[in-house]
Amino acid sequence: MHKRTSWYSLFILVCLPIFLAKADAPADIKAYTQANQAQILQDFKALLAIPNISAVPEDMFKNADWITAYIAERGFTSEVVTAGGAPYILAEKKVPGASKSILIYAHFDGQPVEPSNWATPPFEPTLIDKPIELGGKPVEWDGKAPLNPQWRLAARSAGDDKGPVIALMAALDAMEALNITPSVNIKLVLDGEEEIGSPTLEAILKEHGHKMDAELMLFCDGPMHPSRIQQLVFGMRGSMTLELTTYGALSPLHSGHYGNFSPNPTDRLMRLLTSMTDTDGNILIKGYNDQTRPISPAEQQAIDNIPNIDAQLRHDLAIAESLGKTVRVEEGVLKPAIIVKGFQAGGVGSQSRNIIQPEATASLNLRLSAGQTPAFLREKMEAHIVEQGFVITYDDPTIEMRRENKLLAKLEWRPGPYPAFRSEIDSPEAIKLTSIMDSLSTEPTILTPTLGGSLPIYLFEEALDMPIIILPIANHDNNQHGRNENLRLQNLWDAVEIYAAILSEYDR
Amino acid sequence: MHKRTSWYSLFILVCLPIFLAKADAPADIKAYTQANQAQILQDFKALLAIPNISAVPEDMFKNADWITAYIAERGFTSEVVTAGGAPYILAEKKVPGASKSILIYAHFDGQPVEPSNWATPPFEPTLIDKPIELGGKPVEWDGKAPLNPQWRLAARSAGDDKGPVIALMAALDAMEALNITPSVNIKLVLDGEEEIGSPTLEAILKEHGHKMDAELMLFCDGPMHPSRIQQLVFGMRGSMTLELTTYGALSPLHSGHYGNFSPNPTDRLMRLLTSMTDTDGNILIKGYNDQTRPISPAEQQAIDNIPNIDAQLRHDLAIAESLGKTVRVEEGVLKPAIIVKGFQAGGVGSQSRNIIQPEATASLNLRLSAGQTPAFLREKMEAHIVEQGFVITYDDPTIEMRRENKLLAKLEWRPGPYPAFRSEIDSPEAIKLTSIMDSLSTEPTILTPTLGGSLPIYLFEEALDMPIIILPIANHDNNQHGRNENLRLQNLWDAVEIYAAILSEYDR
Repeated sequence: MHKRTSWYSLFILVCLPIFLAKADAPADIKAYTQANQAQILQDFKALLAIPNISAVPEDMFKNADWITAYIAERGFTSEVVTAGGAPYILAEKKVPGASKSILIYAHFDGQPVEPSNWATPPFEPTLIDKPIELGGKPVEWDGKAPLNPQWRLAARSAGDDKGPVIALMAALDAMEALNITPSVNIKLVLDGEEEIGSPTLEAILKEHGHKMDAELMLFCDGPMHPSRIQQLVFGMRGSMTLELTTYGALSPLHSGHYGNFSPNPTDRLMRLLTSMTDTDGNILIKGYNDQTRPISPAEQQAIDNIPNIDAQLRHDLAIAESLGKTVRVEEGVLKPAIIVKGFQAGGVGSQSRNIIQPEATASLNLRLSAGQTPAFLREKMEAHIVEQGFVITYDDPTIEMRRENKLLAKLEWRPGPYPAFRSEIDSPEAIKLTSIMDSLSTEPTILTPTLGGSLPIYLFEEALDMPIIILPIANHDNNQHGRNENLRLQNLWDAVEIYAAILSEYDR
Repeated sequence: MHKRTSWYSLFILVCLPIFLAKADAPADIKAYTQANQAQILQDFKALLAIPNISAVPEDMFKNADWITAYIAERGFTSEVVTAGGAPYILAEKKVPGASKSILIYAHFDGQPVEPSNWATPPFEPTLIDKPIELGGKPVEWDGKAPLNPQWRLAARSAGDDKGPVIALMAALDAMEALNITPSVNIKLVLDGEEEIGSPTLEAILKEHGHKMDAELMLFCDGPMHPSRIQQLVFGMRGSMTLELTTYGALSPLHSGHYGNFSPNPTDRLMRLLTSMTDTDGNILIKGYNDQTRPISPAEQQAIDNIPNIDAQLRHDLAIAESLGKTVRVEEGVLKPAIIVKGFQAGGVGSQSRNIIQPEATASLNLRLSAGQTPAFLREKMEAHIVEQGFVITYDDPTIEMRRENKLLAKLEWRPGPYPAFRSEIDSPEAIKLTSIMDSLSTEPTILTPTLGGSLPIYLFEEALDMPIIILPIANHDNNQHGRNENLRLQNLWDAVEIYAAILSEYDR
């Protein structure tokens, strides 16, 4: 399939609408997509080239302008709304004769970037032949279709989460070219601030939620199963962020003169952090796990049905053992986790100096399981810190506080904690979607009780009355949130087919 | 004394050489210094304004040029020499009739700076009214002498170690103005790479050591005793730097998807580091302390004679307790220490992202006691790391190594370890120096067996045959190596008096 010459692609492009309109729809969509790879890729690059750090509103409005123009060409009416934060796009494409609606969620903002860590500039989308970590290099495409499906497009938000908008519009273009009418009305809610916790989503839903009526909500975000088998997801982990700072002397001290006399805040912070978990990541904080909802038999069955890819995953990630050795990755995400995601206390390498730092700071990501509430976890965490001998402050400590308290910890609970979300795995909507997706593949669709990411789904669940199912399309190794983020091209082409199938078949 | 008006200063400036030449020499030097504060400060600022990061040779040569011109005006012949590294200045001022020589060491390079952490630019010397950490602010001097002696001059190397060159030349200027002839020839060895471990000093000494013959070597570096009483020091801690890197997955991972599955290198590094010491800083590594030379009765006596400033120090540093509670700061520096001086593993605050880092790195400063050898400590440290379950590598691990080894640590032993140094506290030279300094103050000179810093003294000890005594002049809270480094003005004026007294009295 991948050795077709370009004249053949041209043939497909020109002749398909004429000769194949009545043939097998998924195969037609596949052929159309292949013939139009260059255009789809060009559109994707144009969107990815617009910087989209959530905290920079002017950039987010540029993205919103681009997207509204892009979807308007496919018959969507849209409005860009805000509630004092980044923009959200609400859009709708009414389909004559359709009686049901599907509401589709995606987000178009991305995590901050440190360009110096990237092999290619984060906002200059670049084709690479494989992951940078495996020796991937930029490649020039000679224009011949099909593109190597293993190549990736590297850019911030390539994997998380600008792909769905492009793939969805490509699906509608393909359906139009093939005279396939959607079976449902299509509503979009596109989030411009997901990566900073969608702080104004609640207000947006309060004001505009009534426009989002639908029979089903599809959440298009997150990475696929590492086996690359198509997947539906019914739950998400919750997430909270806590920053912790410990203190030593008031100012930086020469490590020779004051080592063995003045306490080292780095040492204090390390001991506090390692007291929270064991080496397998199990949480040791008293009562912390009390609210965790156990895995139901149906969920356990679904997990057992998922092909076990732990060994492959360990190979791909280049780790000798997973945490706790015997925990499957699908079970791991059903457990709470405390992850030290950042630790800053003086430089290393050429930035290292012989000083004892005045303070050390760590950023912790707490991942919540279904049932756990942020307020409860905060209470247990703070009790633990006090039990370790620390006096807690929420502001920078005064000099008097530093003089009086041997162990002092500043806690900064970041706004926007997400509770976890876990919905029914065997609802009629789930069964219908599963059957459409099964029809596209020889492999049965993987039904995942919980995906590791955290999305503002709980807000939709509270505000809207419809089943919510997550449909991820990005490759598992897309470096989401990190440097060299990318989308594997085959994932993009597959997404076009999946969206086309759902839109044409959901209420057929 | 500090309320004298400027006309009085002018009187001193003009009349002192005429009327007071035969009067009490230390008082005359003091008066001269006070009358000439503006000029001394201006010279000091000019030298501090030249950036002097050791690793930037062109800047170090600029410093060397400035200094050689400056000391030439005081009758020094000098040569700038290198052995493939930063420049060293060797200089000599021959004094007619003098039969002995004193060799004076200082260094003119500084530690790297992070200007964003400084309240004032590190290479724009700025007068501040008190330490920045205590609310200090830049001040404008109205030109009236004397300057407030509590003010400080803030700049990189103000405290460590550009002050001695300025104070020494001011002392010679004062002596010249007062018709006081030095009693000894003066030789200088000024180091341009001390802060990176003087990597070429051994070669410099091999080629030029014969020019450094003298009866006594004065090491002018390091901070004074926090009591501000004058001090002589007879030993220095040794120092080694080890960088340690631990590994997780090959690339940054989303902390939600992979938390509880993929190991966190930050957690591994924290557990490894906290296994090396207890919370009091005592080293737990097997055999690590076996070489440590015990404190001699004479040294213990000297320590007991030193005013105990621990309580004041805790107050100044704003710490509730010192490490190990009952250890005096003077005893602490006689013990080995392992200090985590840098820890980098992902961002905090606005730079924090929800990822599990692929690696975590810490920079360790090992402080050596007299008797400890770098090779022995390295062996014990590596055995400990292996005992903690780690496989050691000295290069970046291959992907295969990462797949095969659960715990992998990259060790980078930085070049230029300093062994410790501890010399006789009651030699004739020590007694002579002590008596000169005692004559300048109502307080007996503090005799310190070991100062916490590490200097390349052991190389001089090996290469040259003379007693070596350290004479620190910087305030203890000069933020040496850190941000907002500064020299308290009174320390600068005192240094002029001390140097003048030593040069005039040493062989009188």
